[in-house]
Amino acid sequence: MNESDGSDGYAHLFADPVRETMEGAAYGTWRAITAPDAVSLAFGFPYPDALPNGAVGDAVDTVLEVDHEDALQYAGGDYADAITETVVERTRARGIDCSAEEVHVANGATHALDTVAQTFLDPGDTIAVEAPTFMGAIRLFRNYDPDIEGYAMDANGLDVDAFADDLAAREEAGDPLPKLLYTIPDFQNPTGVTLSTERRERLLELAETYDFLIVEDDPYGQLRYEGSTPPPLRSLDEDGRVIRVDTFSKTIAPGIRTGWIVADEAIIRELDRINAGGENVLTLGLVARYCEAIDFEANLEELCAGYRERRDRMLETLEERMPSGTNWSEPEGGFFVWIDFPEGIDAEELLPTAADEGVTYLPGSYFYHDGRGDGHARISFSYAAPDEIEEAIAALARATRAELPAAEAADD
Amino acid sequence: MNESDGSDGYAHLFADPVRETMEGAAYGTWRAITAPDAVSLAFGFPYPDALPNGAVGDAVDTVLEVDHEDALQYAGGDYADAITETVVERTRARGIDCSAEEVHVANGATHALDTVAQTFLDPGDTIAVEAPTFMGAIRLFRNYDPDIEGYAMDANGLDVDAFADDLAAREEAGDPLPKLLYTIPDFQNPTGVTLSTERRERLLELAETYDFLIVEDDPYGQLRYEGSTPPPLRSLDEDGRVIRVDTFSKTIAPGIRTGWIVADEAIIRELDRINAGGENVLTLGLVARYCEAIDFEANLEELCAGYRERRDRMLETLEERMPSGTNWSEPEGGFFVWIDFPEGIDAEELLPTAADEGVTYLPGSYFYHDGRGDGHARISFSYAAPDEIEEAIAALARATRAELPAAEAADD
Repeated sequence: MNESDGSDGYAHLFADPVRETMEGAAYGTWRAITAPDAVSLAFGFPYPDALPNGAVGDAVDTVLEVDHEDALQYAGGDYADAITETVVERTRARGIDCSAEEVHVANGATHALDTVAQTFLDPGDTIAVEAPTFMGAIRLFRNYDPDIEGYAMDANGLDVDAFADDLAAREEAGDPLPKLLYTIPDFQNPTGVTLSTERRERLLELAETYDFLIVEDDPYGQLRYEGSTPPPLRSLDEDGRVIRVDTFSKTIAPGIRTGWIVADEAIIRELDRINAGGENVLTLGLVARYCEAIDFEANLEELCAGYRERRDRMLETLEERMPSGTNWSEPEGGFFVWIDFPEGIDAEELLPTAADEGVTYLPGSYFYHDGRGDGHARISFSYAAPDEIEEAIAALARATRAELPAAEAADD
Repeated sequence: MNESDGSDGYAHLFADPVRETMEGAAYGTWRAITAPDAVSLAFGFPYPDALPNGAVGDAVDTVLEVDHEDALQYAGGDYADAITETVVERTRARGIDCSAEEVHVANGATHALDTVAQTFLDPGDTIAVEAPTFMGAIRLFRNYDPDIEGYAMDANGLDVDAFADDLAAREEAGDPLPKLLYTIPDFQNPTGVTLSTERRERLLELAETYDFLIVEDDPYGQLRYEGSTPPPLRSLDEDGRVIRVDTFSKTIAPGIRTGWIVADEAIIRELDRINAGGENVLTLGLVARYCEAIDFEANLEELCAGYRERRDRMLETLEERMPSGTNWSEPEGGFFVWIDFPEGIDAEELLPTAADEGVTYLPGSYFYHDGRGDGHARISFSYAAPDEIEEAIAALARATRAELPAAEAADD
């Protein structure tokens, strides 16, 4: 116990999952991928005009004046129920049956996911994830020392047949089955693809058959720019198998860091009990007051118009500029396009050239739990202005051509 | 794996520490201990006038206007450094050497403690705590399935000699030594007592000898109403053994939920990496702007005047009213007085009578990791007005007398 020869500093005192991953960079270190003169397509940030500074300021004023004695106090009392009512209302607006007892409010969706992971994962438990998936989720799951199993995606989201085959094979072989499946069904991060309704229904059947829970992470679902919305997994959930994570980060602002979980009451009760962070009462108050004051649906339409214009410009410019052999996803919503570079291009190696040409992005390998994805990149159309997006994609095309193996470049 | 006969709902899928504690109530359930006509001494809430609604509103306005594009965005950029600078400045004001690389900002002190626990505790690790101690800390430590060892307190804080004896005995017997000691050295929650300077120095020697880290939780240290301030443990720390947790909850407001950790850079690096919650950028901005705009020290003096008046009234009324055989701590600062009831009084059983008489409090057993403390209660002078405190203590005295075993009551 606590034995050290003094050469490792504190390292022998860190928990096992910390020691096992100590070489890893902090989540967010990739934000250092900036080049002062390049357009950044790296971040899933809302574009500046999407952020409602004025309305948030008004909501804060209301909270501080009207809820005077409660506004800056610890949580408690009737006042704290306002945010739950707001969340119930927003959840029902997505076609999901929901009561106040089925809601757990968190300091953002990532905090919510962390509480889910802590509530379910023992060291060595298996968690199934999409491959690729949200890098922040991989990071936080690793803190709980699980076996992370990745399952392939296609244009219709998670390949549920392949997942089902693996579950059957695991059961046959007596191998561990996952406790949780983590999925981003709508406009997935990083691929932008959406899980088909048929696959959603099949997933719920699999959850019941193989006794796992589905963590439905849905930060982008309301940001749809074309096509029709498939039902959220939680709205199809008759057996209480879905733990739904949602957030105001994309429909109000990331900087207010308010997310929530909708799940069966028996699960919410434990999440409430396990969650050790306290609530930011001022923020919860302002979110509730903001939602009272604005027309949420009309605001969503405006946001969608801004994002649609950016997505369209990105997809058009990709079509015009990228060398043949490049493929990309065509998302109907959300923030991200997933690039599949021509054979011979490594996205991480391409990055310095791309930055010189005038664009930065996140290499695909960041989104795989096992380091695959060299030939991919995530580019985000959420933040840059449409003209900047056009310039950035032109720069990406130039960089890609410059790095193409000679034969393919000449061919093109 | 995942085997269930269907009778336990989801319980078989919960992580081990969740299943082991499923009968426990959610943290904060004790807030239900209210009686509409009773004065609550149960909560460590700041009194309403202590909360700076006006200055917080001004700070939010400044953030939303001056830091316009960053105010509601994800964290990043120079703007995010403002809060770190603010924290460094506040830490140096406590006589602690501190650089930006030695700071980890969190969503409140409890969130900070949770990140420390996650970074250091594997299941079965030993953590030493004061007995009694902050109930929220016990709760969150339990999530990591450690062995919690409690060590006695006296009027000068943790009994460091007894702690040292136990460490020596453990080493002798080959029993596990603690990885962490969790202590609240200043105006401890719930006892109100302060660790003497001599004991602080001794603790640091023990940490070095027995190779553990000290988690110094100091939410109250700046709220001193008499006497002189002993040096924070972190200011005496030459070997990098102290992880200091501090918060703006008591010096600005709980509702802005901003805490931080000061520790050696090698520890901060891992805390940054392990922490999965994101930052509430609007809040961090407002805290930084608030600290720029106000005279922090002058504001502290005003706060101390308000709390001092409340403490004095509580201690005076205890002296005047409580039946003989009752003892209590006499804190020089902070929020809490710890009651030691006369023989035969059980604080939890007394509570309904006390509520009828006009006062509520928290029973002492809430603050022990092992359920001891029947004969104690924590009463807080932080929230109620001075006249209410006088009424509340009078009510506590009436209730105590009413419940005293007949012989003692007659004697009194």
